[in-house]
Amino acid sequence: MKLFDGGKAPNPRRVRVFLAEKGIEVPIEPVDMTRLEHRGEAIVRRNPLARLPVLELDDGTILTESVAICRYFELLHPGPALFGTGAIGQARVEMWNRRLELGLLATVAAAFRHTHPAMKDWEVPQFPDWGAANRIKAVEALEMLDRHLADTRFVCGEDYTIADITGLVALDFMKPARIELPEQLAHVRRWHAEISARPSAAA
Amino acid sequence: MKLFDGGKAPNPRRVRVFLAEKGIEVPIEPVDMTRLEHRGEAIVRRNPLARLPVLELDDGTILTESVAICRYFELLHPGPALFGTGAIGQARVEMWNRRLELGLLATVAAAFRHTHPAMKDWEVPQFPDWGAANRIKAVEALEMLDRHLADTRFVCGEDYTIADITGLVALDFMKPARIELPEQLAHVRRWHAEISARPSAAA
Repeated sequence: MKLFDGGKAPNPRRVRVFLAEKGIEVPIEPVDMTRLEHRGEAIVRRNPLARLPVLELDDGTILTESVAICRYFELLHPGPALFGTGAIGQARVEMWNRRLELGLLATVAAAFRHTHPAMKDWEVPQFPDWGAANRIKAVEALEMLDRHLADTRFVCGEDYTIADITGLVALDFMKPARIELPEQLAHVRRWHAEISARPSAAA
Repeated sequence: MKLFDGGKAPNPRRVRVFLAEKGIEVPIEPVDMTRLEHRGEAIVRRNPLARLPVLELDDGTILTESVAICRYFELLHPGPALFGTGAIGQARVEMWNRRLELGLLATVAAAFRHTHPAMKDWEVPQFPDWGAANRIKAVEALEMLDRHLADTRFVCGEDYTIADITGLVALDFMKPARIELPEQLAHVRRWHAEISARPSAAA
């Protein structure tokens, strides 16, 4: 098994943090995205979308999409349960992971891709106005998250889950996307400090 | 239990098709999205994102996000397995459902929301150029899907799954988004005809 990994990009990091939380070590095959190596033959042959991460199993089976790769490891190594437990628990983690992915990570990524000069070969063409509009959407998502975190330690209660991981990588991706975390969102700050202090955050 | 449902919109339809495939009947609470009722107090109190569908359980528990609602029913009623079976099988369904959701349904939705006059109160402001760019992204996703469907009956093999449902609602949403299915994508046409002929497609 090997994991084609893209370094600092948020989706590869999601999988690395997930694996660190599980205590699973997977051999890493580094791919230099700054040199657009993820568009090279070795990746495109495995993932026609030319995106990372890509997991290759020993029998040649390919899995892509960060959450799909995480789910594969969750099913193989159920503890600690990062996708929740029980029907309602698992559905709630799915709900919050999607809210954070679609409302926060995707909007931060859109701001980055459509406004950052380094992304001009990645997002063709860039729409800077759309990128700027996504900064506003991202802050709205953070405000909703702050109201939610007023009543809960982690995103889905007392247990750390993949929804926290998605939130972590989204928040840390705000810096290159030039989005500031509003000062008054104290619950988001408290939660971000706690999940950033876990050893997995260094992955 | 009741399901606040939004009629023709693709996400509410995803859940209805899923329930029809499972043979599960859930009382429906219709919400008229054309009159923006999904932004009214009854929905916003249950889902601060003001989106449908919303599932309310008898104890008042709220679940939102179509795939989270579907997963809840999958866990309660495992057969037929619409999220796949086994670790690789479930991960593959997650992968393809995400490819179709993020690559196709989301791009079709962006084209619709940013170019359709009826959406001017939904997407503020609209970015028509971004909407038009998404028509191209949607067709690229269809071309990738066509190459994939050359070798498989359904998106994930011989078994119909939630990835087919996501593809179905995305394809049918292309009409209001004014995206034509390219004539030469014969495998997508064959697959779309087959899944459209299932009784669940009428849901």
